Order: sequence, then structure tokens, then C-alpha cells
Amino acid sequence: MTDNGTNCTPEGKKLGQNGIIQPLLTDLYQITMAYAYWKSGKTKDYAVFDLFFRKNPFQGEFTIFAGLEECLKFLKKFHYSYSDIEYLRQTLPATIEEEFYIFLSKLTAKDVTLYALEEGSVAFPRVPLLRIEGPLIMAQLLETTLLTLVNYASLMATNAARYRMAAGDLMLLEFGLRRAQGPDGGLSASKYSYIGGFDGTSNVLAGKLFNIPVKGTHAHAYITSFTNLSDLHLEMLQPKNGGDPKNLLELSLNWRAKLVNMFRVVSNEANDGELAALISFAIAFPDGFMALVDTYDVKRSGLLNFCAVALALNDLGYRAIGIRIDSGDLAYLSNIARMYFVEISRTYSVPWFADLMIMASNDINEETILSLNDQGHKINCFGIGTHLVTCQRQPALGCVYKMVELNGQPRMKLSQDVGKVTMPGCKDAYRLYSESGDALIDLLQRSVEEAPEINKKVLCRHPFEESKRAYVIPSRVEKLHKLYWKNGEIVQTLPNLNKIREKVRASLRTLRPDIKRNLNPTPFKVAVSDNLYHFLHQLWLENAPIGELS
Amino acid sequence: MTDNGTNCTPEGKKLGQNGIIQPLLTDLYQITMAYAYWKSGKTKDYAVFDLFFRKNPFQGEFTIFAGLEECLKFLKKFHYSYSDIEYLRQTLPATIEEEFYIFLSKLTAKDVTLYALEEGSVAFPRVPLLRIEGPLIMAQLLETTLLTLVNYASLMATNAARYRMAAGDLMLLEFGLRRAQGPDGGLSASKYSYIGGFDGTSNVLAGKLFNIPVKGTHAHAYITSFTNLSDLHLEMLQPKNGGDPKNLLELSLNWRAKLVNMFRVVSNEANDGELAALISFAIAFPDGFMALVDTYDVKRSGLLNFCAVALALNDLGYRAIGIRIDSGDLAYLSNIARMYFVEISRTYSVPWFADLMIMASNDINEETILSLNDQGHKINCFGIGTHLVTCQRQPALGCVYKMVELNGQPRMKLSQDVGKVTMPGCKDAYRLYSESGDALIDLLQRSVEEAPEINKKVLCRHPFEESKRAYVIPSRVEKLHKLYWKNGEIVQTLPNLNKIREKVRASLRTLRPDIKRNLNPTPFKVAVSDNLYHFLHQLWLENAPIGELS
Repeated sequence: MTDNGTNCTPEGKKLGQNGIIQPLLTDLYQITMAYAYWKSGKTKDYAVFDLFFRKNPFQGEFTIFAGLEECLKFLKKFHYSYSDIEYLRQTLPATIEEEFYIFLSKLTAKDVTLYALEEGSVAFPRVPLLRIEGPLIMAQLLETTLLTLVNYASLMATNAARYRMAAGDLMLLEFGLRRAQGPDGGLSASKYSYIGGFDGTSNVLAGKLFNIPVKGTHAHAYITSFTNLSDLHLEMLQPKNGGDPKNLLELSLNWRAKLVNMFRVVSNEANDGELAALISFAIAFPDGFMALVDTYDVKRSGLLNFCAVALALNDLGYRAIGIRIDSGDLAYLSNIARMYFVEISRTYSVPWFADLMIMASNDINEETILSLNDQGHKINCFGIGTHLVTCQRQPALGCVYKMVELNGQPRMKLSQDVGKVTMPGCKDAYRLYSESGDALIDLLQRSVEEAPEINKKVLCRHPFEESKRAYVIPSRVEKLHKLYWKNGEIVQTLPNLNKIREKVRASLRTLRPDIKRNLNPTPFKVAVSDNLYHFLHQLWLENAPIGELS
Repeated sequence: MTDNGTNCTPEGKKLGQNGIIQPLLTDLYQITMAYAYWKSGKTKDYAVFDLFFRKNPFQGEFTIFAGLEECLKFLKKFHYSYSDIEYLRQTLPATIEEEFYIFLSKLTAKDVTLYALEEGSVAFPRVPLLRIEGPLIMAQLLETTLLTLVNYASLMATNAARYRMAAGDLMLLEFGLRRAQGPDGGLSASKYSYIGGFDGTSNVLAGKLFNIPVKGTHAHAYITSFTNLSDLHLEMLQPKNGGDPKNLLELSLNWRAKLVNMFRVVSNEANDGELAALISFAIAFPDGFMALVDTYDVKRSGLLNFCAVALALNDLGYRAIGIRIDSGDLAYLSNIARMYFVEISRTYSVPWFADLMIMASNDINEETILSLNDQGHKINCFGIGTHLVTCQRQPALGCVYKMVELNGQPRMKLSQDVGKVTMPGCKDAYRLYSESGDALIDLLQRSVEEAPEINKKVLCRHPFEESKRAYVIPSRVEKLHKLYWKNGEIVQTLPNLNKIREKVRASLRTLRPDIKRNLNPTPFKVAVSDNLYHFLHQLWLENAPIGELS
């Protein structure tokens, strides 16, 4: 093995894609099928595959499509290295002809054509996220890797978008790296939660690679590494506008003595190690003072110590950022904290003190946020880890990759489960909008049909239930798929992360609120044209075996 | 940015570790804390951290520890690159001194010492999986990455071990790449499911990187890419022992005609496209013929076509491998399939036919296997994807990393939730065994204490409940932690994957069955020595604030 699988090719480096994304990151059966196709002379066969999902995740009624850029980078660099071929030679039967390995070693994605939804679009069941056209063998070899790149990315972006809707305008930070499914699960989570509407991440590498804002202050260990005031080696801090350094410890102790009455505690209830830790942190980050206040007791120690240091900083011209609460009753504690901030703000005429940030970060999920909203809280920011990055409520999106056409002939997968029947043939999809800009319906048509026109009646049919039909008169018609890859090149200018993030917001705005709500949302309709309806059912009848009762 | 984060250093390549595992794969607060520690003169502080979990996953009572080798590789290559430092300089406040960046750029893990359980060991709540000793700043900077590397690896290995116990001696294959959480989630899943007891994976890159057996045949798309017999371009196959090629299509059609009576179908119910696909696959892999039989109808088409081709192969001296069923009632279909295999075996005197492999692969989880066991089935092999790799039942293991000692002084995190109170100080752990080799209890002691001795009474105490105590007389005493990393070197010979896999099995064998069972398992006890008990409670009293009712 010469490249040990991290595959640091010049092309790979230039694209800035994780080295493990490479052609061998696939299921073996793709390669055994490739050989069997090759062996049976099917190298000229030309196929169309749809990549789609059958059910929206999280008991919701929408999905955010993400992962496209990674798919395109993968197509760009698709190539079996010398060591890949050597590995396959050892792994597959010895009877396989050398010509097949030569064939593999020359394969690239240049004869593949890829259409896709825009990254960040709202997507619905059965509407292809990707349509891949190309030589059967090559299109088949792409399956697993494309699914891997789209499945988790879309699941994560959707999850993040749901948290964003639950949290309204509050700040949301992704803190999940330590609980993510593998190091790359962590990186992908940071990236796609930002796309879905998060404001930043704690993951530094994600910040570096994707230019996402990174946030973070300190952990409980920082607080407990100080046991008393004598642990504080540096006490002096220069005022923001210059001048002689002042003793921040003295100032803080003075403020704490003043505040004990307001907090109705005796001064020695507040932990001195905690105070020392906060002072040292404030000296290190006087403009970025954000403190964890629940190491000992939020009310009797953490909050009091924080306010003392924040007011001392204020004496030197610095504004603290706020607090983080990582345990306990978040609604209650946030209300208490806000109450003190407001009271201090008034008592000592420090207006900005009332608006200090309150961040909560203990095992938060979508339901927690909704429940906190119901209870009433004063939190400005959520730091969210495990439940966000593992998508605990549904840890996988079931995207599939199905052949719909071969050599110009439609293909469909039959199933006793109607939900699993595929839509045959090469298709286009359109989103029809109302005059007010609401998305009304997604319409799948055969690619040979004319596009729907605005202000004209369009017959939209349920794909399986004959009697379910509706006329829609669209005020706007959006063709959902764009050509992204042809002749070995990316043929669209790809948006940056912020643009994709904006696309998510814009796309979600076109959905009626009842489709987006958390509880019992209304399904968004995906219809087929009358032509596709008949095409599908004709083919179904031709292919379904006639049962026999005996 | 010169290294675009994939960090293909010579050291990284040599270690064969995913390039994204690097010091910046961490939470920002580790670096802000590092600065605050540095700023407050704590560069000489020396800390001990424990990495442990509080609760076994999957409502079980054991956990498999995994991820150690990755942690050691990470220590080996720990180094901030020039571009890392540049990124931090742009990200952190401008007030941060240049000396700090110089300090960071020189940091390595050489002053860190790491003790750990053996990779593949059974582990229990509160017993440290890793103990990290070293300069406070450096030990703190390792937190997130070590957690990321241990959390999912251990969760996955545990999940796989549970599937293994449910499946007994049946073959288990991991098929989850397409649904994994990120490409590396897929790779890690393949690796750690193998460690946990799986027999192979479909993930080719995992096979190449980790030398795991890879398996796979074909998908439904392969079957549907053939519509009728004329799609078959190659019909001839040379017999295994040489001689003139024979027509496999003719032989298969003959066999199918013979079998229709036994299968109680009329020949035209069997799909000819499917037969063509199976024949082409058999010609490509005559020694590895394994067929997906549920594309159309298992009983009336897939099974019949498979048996016809397998018998035709048999005429040429080849033995088919078996079938895969990917939908429907797996217990029922496997019984039917086995019945036909046995009947054919007898009718045509082909003894091995009775033992053909039956693989099932539709949305399998631990409960499905247990339920199939109850119903009675004839499956030999499970292919398992989504539920295995996403650990759907519990998608994260909650490992934490807590400071337990600083400059020789014990540290403990207090919490109103007793379960979250940490065990202070530097500790050793021992597993005490009965004469029959069963693990009886894990005992945490202060490192200053003498090890328990065999055949002598050892007082084992519940860490929090005063009255819960027991004397244990061990027949064997195992010191659980070994030194793995010191002075910048890995100081143990690391076992290969197969050795770790064997360790899992051996370690699980020491647990009584009631601890391992799926339903209401008995908790395995983790006790503290009398000395640690008093040490802990003394420290607790000294540090816990005295509440006041008012």
C-alpha cells in the first residue's frame, strides 16, 4: 500500500475534501456488479438513476437537501489509484481478467451527467435530490459514496433547521464534536448545522476548513483548577482605554461585598476558587468574558462571582458577554439570572448589564427548546451537542439510489409496499407557487413533457390513488433540477456556505407554517403529471405478476 | 492555508490515521482555556484527568472499550501546524501575546502519560477508560479529541458485541456505509463492528485500510438491468475442472423446467430478466454465486431461478454460496428456502445444497434477531446496516473527561445529582475474579494503596451508600490499567484488530450471562476501597456548601 487510503492526491488536496472520500469508500457489491456487467458486455449500457428519500425525517414534513458540493468534488477526483487496484486484485477472485482492472484504472466520471436540486433547498419524498445519467457501470459505482455524502448531510441540515425554527431568533451554537459518530461525523455536523441555521460551532477545525464562526470559553475543569484566591497569580488588568493597570481582584472583591445583600447570601457561600478562576479568565479575555456559573451553586456562588467580576471589568471600561448554565432548571435559573442582571443594571446604572447573554447548554434537544418556550425563559443562546449531531430522534435519512431508465427503456422497482414502488423513467420536477409565493405542490413529469406554464391549469395526480387529483394554477413555476456536472466539469458556480444557508432560509419561507410545525404537520403534496401517472401504471401492470389464490 | 486541514504530514501518513484527526479537531474552549491558564502562569501545573462514562449504553450493563489505538496515534502526531497557528491568530483576540503562539507551536504530547484499559476490554461505569497525567494545559487540550475517538468507537464496538450475542454463531456482516453519519462514521463503524464481533463489512476502504474481510454480491439494480433472456450476451462457462465451455443458460433452463413442479409454479411466473441476471452473475463469479432473490417474488421467481442456476453450476463442478433476502417475512421465507434446498439436496443427491447460505438484510436490529430466534428461522447470515452503524437505540455514549487531581491535590466535581459526582484523586482499578474465572466486581482504589491480594478478604464499598459493603475473596486480581504512553512513545506492543476482537470475546466470557442478557440485565458492581470511600466523603464534606432553609 503506497497511499494508505488517506489518498492525499494533489487533486484531493486542491479540492479540500477529506481524503477518505474516494472510490473505494463504497460497498464491495458495486465493484462485483461492475465486473459482472463488464463480463456480460454491458460496458455501453447507459442508465439513469434517481437518488431520493421516501419519508421526511423527525416526524416532520420537510427535508433540507445538502451534500451536493461534496458529491461534485467526489466526481471531480474519482479515480482508482494503483494501490486501490492492487487491493481489489487481492480481494476479488483470481479468475478476473487483467483487462477488467485496466478498465477500472481508466474510469473517471467524465461521461456522467448530474442534475440536482440546489443545495439548501427544501425537498420532499420521491422527488429526486440527484439524477445521475451515464454509463451503467460508472453510475452504479457512484451509488454508495453519493448516498453517504447526501444522507447524513441532509439529515443534519434538516435537524439544524428544525432547531432553528424552534429557537426563533435566539443564537444557536453546535457543541457536538465529542459525541459525534466519528471525527468526520463531527466535522460534517458542524458544517451542515451551520447550513441549517446555526450561528457557529465549537469545532475549531470546522471553523478553519469551512470558515464558520467558532465559539467557546471554558469548562468546569477551568473553574475547579483554582481552589482559592491565592491561586491567582495575575491580578492586574489595564483599563480598556489605557492607563495604569488596576487590581481586578480587589475591584471584584469590593463588588462582591456590595452585592451579597442583593443576592441574599453571605459572602463566604460564594466559592473563592471560582472567583479566582473567573478573574483569571477575565484578565485573559477582558472583551470576551463569558463565564460558566454552575460549577458550585448558580445562585449562591456562580452568579454572584460573575456579577462581581463583570462590574469590576466595567470599572475598567470592558463589557462582559454573559454566562453559561450547563445544569439544573434552565428556565428557572435563566429567569433568576436575568432578574439580577436587570436589578444590577438599574441599581448601578449600567444599562447594558440587563442584556447580558444567558447561554444554556445541558442536553438540549428540539423538545427542550419548545418546552422552555412554553415555560418562559430568559435564555439568549443555546449550545447544543449530542442530540443535534447524532440526530437522536432519527439517526439516519433513508435515501436510496434507484435505476429508473436503461438504454432509453424505463425501469421500475415493484414492491408489495406501494411506498417503495419507484417512479420510472427520466423525470423532471417542478415546484408550483401561489401568487403570494407559497409553494403549493411539487410535480414530477416525464422529461419528454412540456414544462407547466404559469396561470394555466395543471392537472396534478396522486401517484397511486386514482381518485386523488387536483388542478393547480401556478403563479410561478420553478424547475427544480439544475445541471451541475457534465463532461467532467462542474458547470455551475457553486454557492459558498453562507449562500447555501441563505437558500435554506429562503426555501423554508416558501412553506406554509402548518407544513413546518412540530406537532402533526400537514404533508406537502408531491404529485405526478397525468402522463407520468399513466406511464407508471401501464408499466406496473406489464411487470407485476398476476397472483393466484390457491 | 497550506495544508487545507487534511494535514497530510509524513507522520500522519506513516500512522495511517485519517488526516482530520489533528489538534484543531477540538472545541475552541480548550484553546481559550489554554491561553487563560498560560496567561495566569499555570504552565507548570500538573493534572490528572479520568476519561469515563456514567451509564452503559443500550439499556445494557456492559460496554466494550475501543478507540485506544487511535488515541495513541493522535498523541504521537500532536502538533499545531503553521497554518493552524495562523488560523488561531485570526480567530482569537488580537490582544493575545505572540509568546503564547510560540508556546502552542512547540507543544507536543511528550510530557503526557497515558494509562488505559486494554482495547476490547469490557468496561463499566465510573472506571476510567483512560487516565491522562501531564501538564494541565496539554492534558486539557487533549480532551475533546480523545472523547471523540473513544465515544463512538466504544459505542459501536458495544453495539456490535450485542448483535453478536443475539446472533450466536451466525455470520454477521456490516452493510451500513450509505447510512452512516459521515464518511468516517462509516469507516469507524466497519472497524469497530469487526472488533465487536462482526465477520466482515461491505465497505471496501475499510477492508483495504484495516484488513477486514469484505463481502458483497449485487443489488436489485443488477437484477433489473436485465429484462429478458436476450439481454444475456455471454452464456458459456468453462467447467471448474477444465474442458470445453458449456452453455449455462441451456443448463439453467433445463433445471428450471424440472423444478417447476417441486415449486408448484408455472414456469412463466419466474422472471426471465432475473434468470438472465443470475446466469450472468454466475458466469462472472462461478465460485462465489450468491444471489438476491426478492426483486420480483421470492417463492415464485427468485428462489426457483436461483436453484436452477445453482444446479446448472453444479453440473459444471461449481458450488453456489447461497441467497440473500432483503424484504418480506424473513423467518417464513428462510424456512421456505431451506425446505426447498433440503428437498433438492435429497431429490437430486446434491448433499451440500441443503446447507446453502441464507442471508437476510432488511432493516435488521438486535430486537429483530431476537424475535427471529423466537419464531424459528433458517438464516445463516445477517447483513446489517442503519441500526448498527447509527446505534439507533442510543446514538451516543456519554463519555466525559474530568480533572481528578491538580498538583498532587485531589479534585472532585460536586453535583446535586449523585451519579455525576466524580471520584477524586489518582486511582487504580482492579477486577476481582472468582475461582471459576467469573468477574465478580471492579474495585477502584487510591493509587497510594496496596493492590488487593488473591485469597484475602477485600472490603468493597458502594461509593455513595454507606451500608452497602461486601467482602470479596478473589481467586484472581487483574490490574485494569496499563501504561500505554510515556515520554513521547507508545510503550506497549499494540494488538492488531484480530487480537482486539479476540480480547472482546475473552473479556465477555468472564461476565455472568445475567449481566449480558438483553432484558433486565443484572448490573455489574463497581466498588471503591474503604480508603477511597473515606477520602471521597471527607473531600465531599469539605467542599459541599451547607444549605440553609429559609
